[in-house]
Amino acid sequence: MAGNTFGTLFKVTTFGETHGTSVGCIIDGCPAGLLLSASDIQRELDRRRPGQSTITTQRKESDIVEIHSGVFEGKTTGTPIMLMVKNADARSHDYDHLKDVYRPSHADFTYAKKFGIRDHRGGGRASARETLARVAAGAVAKKILAEQASIEIVAYVERVQDIDSVVDINTITQTDVESTIVRCPDIVAATKMIEHITSVGKQGDSVGGIVRCVIRNTPPGLGEPVFDKVSARLGSAMLSLPAVKGFEIGSGFAGTLKRGSEHNDSFFVEDGTVKTRTNNSGGIQGGISNGEPIHFRVAFKPTSTIAKEQETISSSKKSVLLRASGRHDPCVLPRAVPIVEAMAALTMVDLYLLQKIYG
Amino acid sequence: MAGNTFGTLFKVTTFGETHGTSVGCIIDGCPAGLLLSASDIQRELDRRRPGQSTITTQRKESDIVEIHSGVFEGKTTGTPIMLMVKNADARSHDYDHLKDVYRPSHADFTYAKKFGIRDHRGGGRASARETLARVAAGAVAKKILAEQASIEIVAYVERVQDIDSVVDINTITQTDVESTIVRCPDIVAATKMIEHITSVGKQGDSVGGIVRCVIRNTPPGLGEPVFDKVSARLGSAMLSLPAVKGFEIGSGFAGTLKRGSEHNDSFFVEDGTVKTRTNNSGGIQGGISNGEPIHFRVAFKPTSTIAKEQETISSSKKSVLLRASGRHDPCVLPRAVPIVEAMAALTMVDLYLLQKIYG
Amino acid sequence: MAGNTFGTLFKVTTFGETHGTSVGCIIDGCPAGLLLSASDIQRELDRRRPGQSTITTQRKESDIVEIHSGVFEGKTTGTPIMLMVKNADARSHDYDHLKDVYRPSHADFTYAKKFGIRDHRGGGRASARETLARVAAGAVAKKILAEQASIEIVAYVERVQDIDSVVDINTITQTDVESTIVRCPDIVAATKMIEHITSVGKQGDSVGGIVRCVIRNTPPGLGEPVFDKVSARLGSAMLSLPAVKGFEIGSGFAGTLKRGSEHNDSFFVEDGTVKTRTNNSGGIQGGISNGEPIHFRVAFKPTSTIAKEQETISSSKKSVLLRASGRHDPCVLPRAVPIVEAMAALTMVDLYLLQKIYG
Amino acid sequence: MAGNTFGTLFKVTTFGETHGTSVGCIIDGCPAGLLLSASDIQRELDRRRPGQSTITTQRKESDIVEIHSGVFEGKTTGTPIMLMVKNADARSHDYDHLKDVYRPSHADFTYAKKFGIRDHRGGGRASARETLARVAAGAVAKKILAEQASIEIVAYVERVQDIDSVVDINTITQTDVESTIVRCPDIVAATKMIEHITSVGKQGDSVGGIVRCVIRNTPPGLGEPVFDKVSARLGSAMLSLPAVKGFEIGSGFAGTLKRGSEHNDSFFVEDGTVKTRTNNSGGIQGGISNGEPIHFRVAFKPTSTIAKEQETISSSKKSVLLRASGRHDPCVLPRAVPIVEAMAALTMVDLYLLQKIYG
Repeated sequence: MAGNTFGTLFKVTTFGETHGTSVGCIIDGCPAGLLLSASDIQRELDRRRPGQSTITTQRKESDIVEIHSGVFEGKTTGTPIMLMVKNADARSHDYDHLKDVYRPSHADFTYAKKFGIRDHRGGGRASARETLARVAAGAVAKKILAEQASIEIVAYVERVQDIDSVVDINTITQTDVESTIVRCPDIVAATKMIEHITSVGKQGDSVGGIVRCVIRNTPPGLGEPVFDKVSARLGSAMLSLPAVKGFEIGSGFAGTLKRGSEHNDSFFVEDGTVKTRTNNSGGIQGGISNGEPIHFRVAFKPTSTIAKEQETISSSKKSVLLRASGRHDPCVLPRAVPIVEAMAALTMVDLYLLQKIYG
Repeated sequence: MAGNTFGTLFKVTTFGETHGTSVGCIIDGCPAGLLLSASDIQRELDRRRPGQSTITTQRKESDIVEIHSGVFEGKTTGTPIMLMVKNADARSHDYDHLKDVYRPSHADFTYAKKFGIRDHRGGGRASARETLARVAAGAVAKKILAEQASIEIVAYVERVQDIDSVVDINTITQTDVESTIVRCPDIVAATKMIEHITSVGKQGDSVGGIVRCVIRNTPPGLGEPVFDKVSARLGSAMLSLPAVKGFEIGSGFAGTLKRGSEHNDSFFVEDGTVKTRTNNSGGIQGGISNGEPIHFRVAFKPTSTIAKEQETISSSKKSVLLRASGRHDPCVLPRAVPIVEAMAALTMVDLYLLQKIYG
Repeated sequence: MAGNTFGTLFKVTTFGETHGTSVGCIIDGCPAGLLLSASDIQRELDRRRPGQSTITTQRKESDIVEIHSGVFEGKTTGTPIMLMVKNADARSHDYDHLKDVYRPSHADFTYAKKFGIRDHRGGGRASARETLARVAAGAVAKKILAEQASIEIVAYVERVQDIDSVVDINTITQTDVESTIVRCPDIVAATKMIEHITSVGKQGDSVGGIVRCVIRNTPPGLGEPVFDKVSARLGSAMLSLPAVKGFEIGSGFAGTLKRGSEHNDSFFVEDGTVKTRTNNSGGIQGGISNGEPIHFRVAFKPTSTIAKEQETISSSKKSVLLRASGRHDPCVLPRAVPIVEAMAALTMVDLYLLQKIYG
Repeated sequence: MAGNTFGTLFKVTTFGETHGTSVGCIIDGCPAGLLLSASDIQRELDRRRPGQSTITTQRKESDIVEIHSGVFEGKTTGTPIMLMVKNADARSHDYDHLKDVYRPSHADFTYAKKFGIRDHRGGGRASARETLARVAAGAVAKKILAEQASIEIVAYVERVQDIDSVVDINTITQTDVESTIVRCPDIVAATKMIEHITSVGKQGDSVGGIVRCVIRNTPPGLGEPVFDKVSARLGSAMLSLPAVKGFEIGSGFAGTLKRGSEHNDSFFVEDGTVKTRTNNSGGIQGGISNGEPIHFRVAFKPTSTIAKEQETISSSKKSVLLRASGRHDPCVLPRAVPIVEAMAALTMVDLYLLQKIYG
């Protein structure tokens, strides 16, 4: 209700502010008997970690995960799994000058209006540091999906501002994605993206773009009718991420330019398996998976924190000119890739577990 | 859990198949003391009704709502409101030839795989007739928002296939929208849209497009951090609609082409009120409303049911050529407008009620 | 949230007032493929029906159930099942004199305070007629438990005021229970109970008592740790019934008089099955079923509606003397038996389905 | 769903095993602006702490609470509050001999059957140490109720085995309760209880009893119709506690011995306030508070862990004789008092916040 829980069977409740003592989550509903170690989770956190490359923020945070409960002798016990990452000594005083300023396109003003109080240090709860807990939980979800159902989730940076890439979602692997620091497997595009992000960052500005994600080997039948369609669940998951402004599944907005006769995905049978000739549906029909790859795109706006001078106001409604100091990502997309995968995994594991009841 | 309930405080649970006896819903959580009559609901159902114009399906259904509970002497009592619409005598036998056929891009195959059984008559539960219950419940939500908080919701058809329109979302009214049968207030565009839909329908084909929606007079502070951001909730609501393939809020996908310095919405104060010079945020910052108009776009694919011959398979995995007979919408968008408004109202009323606790 | 939904996987949302047009429910989450006909449900409604014997209210209501959705060609489809019973022509004017009176130990005063409005006709939503929807949904739950897991639920009247019975919960059958109109299978006690209820009714007074229930053939492992223990779930289910003031499982309050060495249930193995020598635990240990019969007791207060004159107040806070006219149950227990069974079934089916995921 | 979350608006999700690194919880939904310090919580934890007196277990655990999030500059921010208590160096090896033994009337067997794996060290998640997290969260709930609504919650030990007490629930204070180590404010009874517990403990045996609780100054109108009655919610809360076998509200089981004319609570008006002459309803009518004190009783069975030799089985289904070593409570009731209060506070704060929406 108060917005910090995701999922209904594999329920993740997150906590923590960027300049508090720690961030983390409780997973309630993880099946018992899953082999789980800190390294399973750490691997994903490392993909999200600040300072990992020249095009991400240069803040150094090691982000070491601790498993506090729910695992006994290397296996999950079916009881709540609490995962926690201690925050490094944060330079909280860096934020003193923001105490009474509402940064443009941040959550400062809206949190102040909603709660009547806000933790101004780095955005507090509204900081993207909150996504760390999602990635930790997502690592567990991914493991269940991979081990129990061979479901694979791969995301990558498809576009940075207007630099687009060409990638085959049917064959792309995480290794391909990890081969460039911008996490775009089209090497030519990746090189341009890296140059552009570097250049924009030097100018004190920022850029956004699009992350694409594919979920392969999903069995038919996942998802629920009406309000819990796979598309609705995935859309909600992605649109809950900081900086996300759009979501489309399958043919998406471009699909609206086609006619029905062009857009419909014809069924055929190959080796006894029902398939579709095209996949404009994005693997989802009537909200339920049909066995084809589920693929979707997520639009991330340019980072709100920039070093350029901006017009804004103080909490006492006075005009203020603001120029961010500090170390920020000129483009969030490379670090967003594991986050998108995590949210996809959290969405799918819930539907996967639910289908065990009714399937 | 099984997908037929929307909302957490103003909870709507829907029921009914297109060729069953009735469709409807229970609203649990409607505040007591609201004046409510059947005509409040009927008005919205009439906007959704088949056969309302030359460009919608010519099926005749009167769709008369019955209020079965929760209203006493013209006022809501705080107890569950059951709304029901009896289905007209349906020509169920029209569907006999579809008993063993999976229509392309419909839910036939996925429902069969999920449940092991399906009601083939007109898609059963997966029929868009299910949205009737959403519109009925949405009418109640709209009334609460309008009367208690002066919140206005207006949607319209922005684009049909590639025919685009120009509309000012700050001033558009429902009267403007209702002035054309295609529900596009740009009269020049509307005329082209109507011609195009008519022409495409005659060819036995279908088209999709984009519905845009604006929510005005929303107070700052609605929405919840992290997973229940307004954007996530609205996105989930829209992506749960039949035929929807994409959702974007504020600048959306186009916003990814801008730099941060162009995209950020500068704050200023006018007559003591905090405003933003641009509204790329779409009225939502950090997931929470900032008082500016909330605006978003919803992509609807072309209708799956077409009269043209299509390749598909039978339930025994044999190839089949299919040609739909019957009376179908060549374009769902005109009838989708009240449905989008209903889902927006259901989303916002939940967040509005929640804010009463914490605001 | 607003209290009209029971269950998390097999979710039942009820609606209706005693003098509205109808009462009923939507079941969301019923597995597909279950054979289900109106007669499966009618049988249970008939056990709850007013006017069924000389010791229940003499109101005549036929209470015919209609299945509005979710069943196709005699089987459930996995979509919502809407069940409805139309209310007979009610003598609403019988209640005109109660419009401004708060009946003692009824919900009149509390509903007026909570909602600022109330339907005074027969208690409106607070009427025990609401339990009809529970019995209808419970019939479906019972069918699933019986057919899929051979789980049996049998309740009976154990005590009426101070008239107690002796019954073996390990062997008692529903046929035994139905053999007397008071639903107590101890014939000697039953005869006394019937006489007592008849006599008390003639005096314009009422009595309460205890319903006992046993759930047999439950597999070990149902229930969830911590907050969703079987005991907590059953307790919540029973305490949500009108007139219920107490619940105890296994040894209950009497168990507090024993020492640990007397109260502990020793394990032993018989024919390869783990059993306990005693069953003070009531089949539940650590909140989870251990395979022994689950048994519990439910305390029903004497009916609040009596023909004797009582002191009370009006809504304008004036003293009033009240004497109920009309036809009321002098003792609700005989009709409470199928209701207790229904709530037990609704509780257990939810835990049974949940265990399919994790078991 | 998986049982570790309590509440719907003020949601508490707990984690931790007795011999893991820590136990704690996340509170999601605490209103912003509440003054909150660790000492507010520590005070309640100290009342629950082992080793606090001669009649509780002599294990020494300091149970120091850490607030990890949701509090900024001494006030709650409306974001999740994570509370954690590190476990002291536990003597896990004390439990090696229990690795393959199912202790009678413990959760050992049922957890093994449910999850296929169990943490045998001190019961793991099923240990009563889990209630520590409830007490921590309950301290926050109590503070909200006291400060915002002057609602008072006082519990005490009413009976130990057959030693009963006489206490006036209308005037009893926490100071009275804390005046004896057994937490019974009737000094004569308390003395007998202490002697009895001491004597039973020396014999290696255990006893149970009854905790009674009163909630005063509750405004009328709290609670929801049908399934979320105050009685159902409180019952569920109490029956979710380890060792609880029964719950009764108001007149409870004893009330079933009265006639309706004796049991009904007549309304009258005093100084403009509506009151009842008796309070058999326990402050709840139709499931909703009427403004009278809410009072209820909770039955705790004798502690399952005893030093006497008991018959049981191993996980390989062999007969075993078991004699507990270690330091255990011969009677849990003195330490159960703050736990009952905590669960009452968690229940009431949820209903209190909900009423802000609809009241």
